[in-house]
Amino acid sequence: MGLMSEAFSQTLIPVCALIGILFALVQWFLVSRIRVASSGPDSYEDQLIEEDDEQVEGIDSAEVVNKKCAEIQNAISVGATSFLFTEYKYLGIFMFVFGVIIFIFLGSVKGFSTKSEPCTYNEGNLCKPALANAIFSTIAFWLGSLTSVLSGFLGMKIATFANARTTLEARKGIGKAFITAFRSGAVMGFLLAANGLLVLYVSINLFKLYYEDDWEGLYESITGYGLGGSSMALFGRVGGGIYTKAADVGADLVGKVEKNIPEDDPRNPAVIADNVGDNVGDIAGMGSDLFGSYAESSCAALFVASISSFGIHHDYAAMSYPLIISSVGIIVCLITTVIATDVVEIKTVSEIEPSLKRQLLISTVLMTVGIAGVSFLVLPSKFTLFDFGTDKVVKNWHLFFCVSIGLWAGLVIGYVTEYYTSNAYSPVQDVADSCRTGAATNVIFGLALGYKSVIIPIFAIAIAIYVSFSLAAMYGIAMSALGMLSTIATGLAIDAYGPISDNAGGIAEMAGMSHRIRERTDALDAAGNTTAAIGKGFAIGSAALVSLALFGAYVSRAGIKTVDVLTPKVFIGLIVGAMLPYWFSAMTMKSVGSAALKMVEEVRRQFNTMPGLLEGTRKPDYATCVKISTDASLKEMIPPGALVMLTPLIAGTLFGVETLAGLLAGSLVSGVQVAISASNTGGAWDNAKKYIEAGASEHARTLGPKGSDAHKAAVIGDTVGDPLKDTSGPSLNILIKLMAVESLVFAPFFASHGGLLFKYL
Amino acid sequence: MGLMSEAFSQTLIPVCALIGILFALVQWFLVSRIRVASSGPDSYEDQLIEEDDEQVEGIDSAEVVNKKCAEIQNAISVGATSFLFTEYKYLGIFMFVFGVIIFIFLGSVKGFSTKSEPCTYNEGNLCKPALANAIFSTIAFWLGSLTSVLSGFLGMKIATFANARTTLEARKGIGKAFITAFRSGAVMGFLLAANGLLVLYVSINLFKLYYEDDWEGLYESITGYGLGGSSMALFGRVGGGIYTKAADVGADLVGKVEKNIPEDDPRNPAVIADNVGDNVGDIAGMGSDLFGSYAESSCAALFVASISSFGIHHDYAAMSYPLIISSVGIIVCLITTVIATDVVEIKTVSEIEPSLKRQLLISTVLMTVGIAGVSFLVLPSKFTLFDFGTDKVVKNWHLFFCVSIGLWAGLVIGYVTEYYTSNAYSPVQDVADSCRTGAATNVIFGLALGYKSVIIPIFAIAIAIYVSFSLAAMYGIAMSALGMLSTIATGLAIDAYGPISDNAGGIAEMAGMSHRIRERTDALDAAGNTTAAIGKGFAIGSAALVSLALFGAYVSRAGIKTVDVLTPKVFIGLIVGAMLPYWFSAMTMKSVGSAALKMVEEVRRQFNTMPGLLEGTRKPDYATCVKISTDASLKEMIPPGALVMLTPLIAGTLFGVETLAGLLAGSLVSGVQVAISASNTGGAWDNAKKYIEAGASEHARTLGPKGSDAHKAAVIGDTVGDPLKDTSGPSLNILIKLMAVESLVFAPFFASHGGLLFKYL
Repeated sequence: MGLMSEAFSQTLIPVCALIGILFALVQWFLVSRIRVASSGPDSYEDQLIEEDDEQVEGIDSAEVVNKKCAEIQNAISVGATSFLFTEYKYLGIFMFVFGVIIFIFLGSVKGFSTKSEPCTYNEGNLCKPALANAIFSTIAFWLGSLTSVLSGFLGMKIATFANARTTLEARKGIGKAFITAFRSGAVMGFLLAANGLLVLYVSINLFKLYYEDDWEGLYESITGYGLGGSSMALFGRVGGGIYTKAADVGADLVGKVEKNIPEDDPRNPAVIADNVGDNVGDIAGMGSDLFGSYAESSCAALFVASISSFGIHHDYAAMSYPLIISSVGIIVCLITTVIATDVVEIKTVSEIEPSLKRQLLISTVLMTVGIAGVSFLVLPSKFTLFDFGTDKVVKNWHLFFCVSIGLWAGLVIGYVTEYYTSNAYSPVQDVADSCRTGAATNVIFGLALGYKSVIIPIFAIAIAIYVSFSLAAMYGIAMSALGMLSTIATGLAIDAYGPISDNAGGIAEMAGMSHRIRERTDALDAAGNTTAAIGKGFAIGSAALVSLALFGAYVSRAGIKTVDVLTPKVFIGLIVGAMLPYWFSAMTMKSVGSAALKMVEEVRRQFNTMPGLLEGTRKPDYATCVKISTDASLKEMIPPGALVMLTPLIAGTLFGVETLAGLLAGSLVSGVQVAISASNTGGAWDNAKKYIEAGASEHARTLGPKGSDAHKAAVIGDTVGDPLKDTSGPSLNILIKLMAVESLVFAPFFASHGGLLFKYL
Repeated sequence: MGLMSEAFSQTLIPVCALIGILFALVQWFLVSRIRVASSGPDSYEDQLIEEDDEQVEGIDSAEVVNKKCAEIQNAISVGATSFLFTEYKYLGIFMFVFGVIIFIFLGSVKGFSTKSEPCTYNEGNLCKPALANAIFSTIAFWLGSLTSVLSGFLGMKIATFANARTTLEARKGIGKAFITAFRSGAVMGFLLAANGLLVLYVSINLFKLYYEDDWEGLYESITGYGLGGSSMALFGRVGGGIYTKAADVGADLVGKVEKNIPEDDPRNPAVIADNVGDNVGDIAGMGSDLFGSYAESSCAALFVASISSFGIHHDYAAMSYPLIISSVGIIVCLITTVIATDVVEIKTVSEIEPSLKRQLLISTVLMTVGIAGVSFLVLPSKFTLFDFGTDKVVKNWHLFFCVSIGLWAGLVIGYVTEYYTSNAYSPVQDVADSCRTGAATNVIFGLALGYKSVIIPIFAIAIAIYVSFSLAAMYGIAMSALGMLSTIATGLAIDAYGPISDNAGGIAEMAGMSHRIRERTDALDAAGNTTAAIGKGFAIGSAALVSLALFGAYVSRAGIKTVDVLTPKVFIGLIVGAMLPYWFSAMTMKSVGSAALKMVEEVRRQFNTMPGLLEGTRKPDYATCVKISTDASLKEMIPPGALVMLTPLIAGTLFGVETLAGLLAGSLVSGVQVAISASNTGGAWDNAKKYIEAGASEHARTLGPKGSDAHKAAVIGDTVGDPLKDTSGPSLNILIKLMAVESLVFAPFFASHGGLLFKYL
């Protein structure tokens, strides 16, 4: 037994979760003190009072600007809310139908019998009937789905609340604007992390009322929570990704390339759709995605733990180790955030990126200490884990290494991503330089950069896997994933900061604020591109570990002893699995391309048929563009969604558990590469363009200014990168996780009824 | 025992090989009857006599044009020869050094002992000492290297002999030009196939003089032949690929995009380098590549057979089954070629592609009959194969299915490739259509097309693997690969046809021939783009099967019983292996990009500093451009070459045989996808551009003509596709094969001395 009592761990988890929520509310309150819509002279004075000694830009028209900002913010918020509600209607139907499928498949394993069964691992005892597992898995699936949807929605609300406030603060200086964007990101990060933990904790305790001592059944059915979280995330990422990039690509192709008007210019009919897109794709999609990773790795760890020695001996504190790690993570991130917002002050543009990087480092160092503490207090000094049919003896310090290596691998991935996507280093500068000879060399160099950026992250993941796998089998992998995600609150804060800054820039442009304000928000945004890439790096890295852990849990639950590449069944799974990320990317890329074509035609039509539009004397028809993005994303998210959701069901039912195991391994090892290279290529192109636009160095100025041939070539690269970095790439990590967790949930069915094709051939 | 006697099979193989060589010489003779350089009035009359009733274009300046063509052909031939000789100097050093490495590694397995050892599989008998295997493996490696180099060189000589002849024949009509290009391709195809078979046959018989009854040792050392073939192919593909694409991209970026002069215009300083590149990259590289595939699959099949029941019982005819299949393949291809050249006549442009497709179909149908005959005559009706530690009973008709399914999978891959890269179908037309909105959508659509084109080939490969694996274990896979390659002579003929036509077009342009001639050669070339993609599809599909067979042979030889994904050692190999194709592509793409940048600068410099160049009054400095390509390719081929050659050595020595097994599986399943998508994307972009240029349909005309915005966007896509389809993509199939065959050759060393890192940790 570890040193911590059951009662203490039972208290610690909800308390940390509540602290996280409270902290998020405090941050929200601080952001909300920035007044947006002036409702009279009072609030106007309010603003003046806040200004302190710093100079306020464009003060003479403050009220007008403020009103404009409020108007635009409102339009974005209304657009995003209405899209998400439409999307949720479809998702609601899916949730219901898929829940029923889960119930039928799992219920049929033992013919819907209500009799208790002998347990599989906890020998000699009786476990709850398979029917109960079917019911509770379905409920867990719905809970996970709802929490995921809630996470995405809350994120979007926060972001659309914060964007105009960031713009207004930018008038007072770069530091204030940064703090506002970062605080808002923190609201989202903490709400999500704490909420995910709390719902999981409460669910386990409620399920326990029924399951009592049957922990096998309890944690088996809890895996439905992970499946729910990730399947919503899939549609959020794909749907949101198509929405945002159709609008973005369409707006850029006509606005920037053909009409030579700036990005986010209010005369561009697609500009509102573009800004709405940032919130539904990068924010809501990202929120659901990382929540899904978190839920899945927790579920994988809990499931594997439930069949370990402390699971069988009902050591509650040790069993809660994954949840306690996450709880401590919230506290660590809280301290880290306070350092960024209240201890260090950002004064110049060049301090933004280092400050964000420092956040990663601080949270990682603090968390390492936290992990050490938790590992020694919570875990028994020695215990046994189930390792594919054999027992493995593990010590508590082994687990410390597993969790820490995941955490540090995440930091390495974050730093490498920053190196390859920030325009402060040579890779992006080389890409920018290749624009001298046109778009073709830019695309060639960008693709090469993306491929190259895969190398170190893969080595980092491989080392994390080797160490944690060797020390603590699949439990080690699951905990390593959770280690990488333990600082999720900070990771999300940094990540959400990006789209908020992007939106802030858009609002500044649309509200006609001065050039200087726009420069400031652009600087925030350039750092945001890098942090978004870092966030995607984390999401992918953790997805790789999570899906390996889920894969291991699936293999255990399906009763497979080896997954031998030297058998035809496994090998064909492996090669077809490695193909799936390409199939999936083909669908999403083509969807964005087609939707963007429609958007381009509509924008061109408006410019051509509506006189006065280009001169700014007439308002464009934003609503039609919003509708094009909405319709395209809702229609186009179905085929890739179906591919991911149906593949494990078909493979398991027709080809059996071994082929499915091969398939999961193949899609994992191939998908990680495609995902990392896609998101880094896209990030690099975006920042190569920004590098030329900003003209901050001698070299950059030889390539610019805006409108030069090199800049035009850079814009083409940026546009190609959009679907890669915001649609295909980030959706792929959901593909690999989701197929694994789905296989895990359906494993009992496949093990008993799967492989029809080989049985009858 | 099968029905065929040893004596008969001993005769059949060399006779078929000699027939193949003779047929190639006849084709060469027919091509050579077209006179190029007029040496007097006689040959000029000769030409008139050949013209028959068809109208000859530009007849009044026939002599001048003929002389110009001869001059250009000579320049290309001299350039290509000089580059290849320089390349071979480096390769000679590599061959020597790597041969010594093989000797040292393999010799050290048993401490350079000269004592005979008990056999591994043929229990109770004595086999030759490990030192002998080291010596003969080294010799086999050198033989394979030399044959590979010879194959590439001969191919280049034929192509540079045929290109101007094709141009001249184009004056007489499309049919004549087609026959000339196709015949020349056939010379290369038959020479390579027959030569590869003959050298292998002779080597086996010479080695047998020493090995006598020790077939294990004999066929173990023969695998060095495959390693030699593929390692030369790697450098040929990478070096040649960088050479040709640096020149092509550089020439296009300045010539077509900036100066608005046509492709292959003699005023472009990079034009000779570009045309030389086609011959050293697409021809010599391709020749070495397919020879490597052929040599490796033969070696893999022979090695696996040597430890089967007929290997142990010394049934020579059954043992020669792989070689007899290849022999029959030569005869089948001969019949197929005669149908194309002498039975069916091409009259219009639209008949070219169907005719080439028909070639594939005819050879496949005939070959199926041939396989059936050979399988029943040569193989015993029942025999046992070694299947990773167990014996597997196999019937002769099982083998018929294995070989046939490989053959037909190849046809499916060929047809799917044609569908995705020919501008007669909707995928390429959609890509062309997306050029309406600029280069960015073109690139997005092209990438999506490439990803999508992976789906069916992977299913075809997976089915071929499943069937042949289930029926006859690794021998089945090796024979399936050989089945796909059994029609290699036709495949190569079709493939070599492409670059020859491309060159013919270049010569027509440079010699200032009329617009109509250029249109004809362009039509030949457009079909050539598709056939080149088909050839690459074959190369990749067969590479996948070959490397799986080699992988199986490696696993057998290294004494591994299972390659279990659920062990950390294997899994890290798998994920790192899946990353290698990206690392490799990053290197080759970047190399092409950098070399192209240098080329662009040189071409720009010449245009800017040499007055009269653009007006055509002054000859450009071709030599400097040739030098840039040469230097770049020789320098840049080393890092990717080292990556491929060193990875198995490092992984095997430091991490051991299991990690290496994972690595091979990972690079195989991931590399196949990257390779197929890269070569199809590139082919599609090239033909989308040609679709707009040709303007053959209503739709195409709305996008064109040359110089329109849509056409400019299409040129950018084409340029991006160049390194994808001609450098990275095709080199990747060598990467996966070569790492596998290298692992196979070094397996005894890794099994006895490998895994140092894990041993001492």
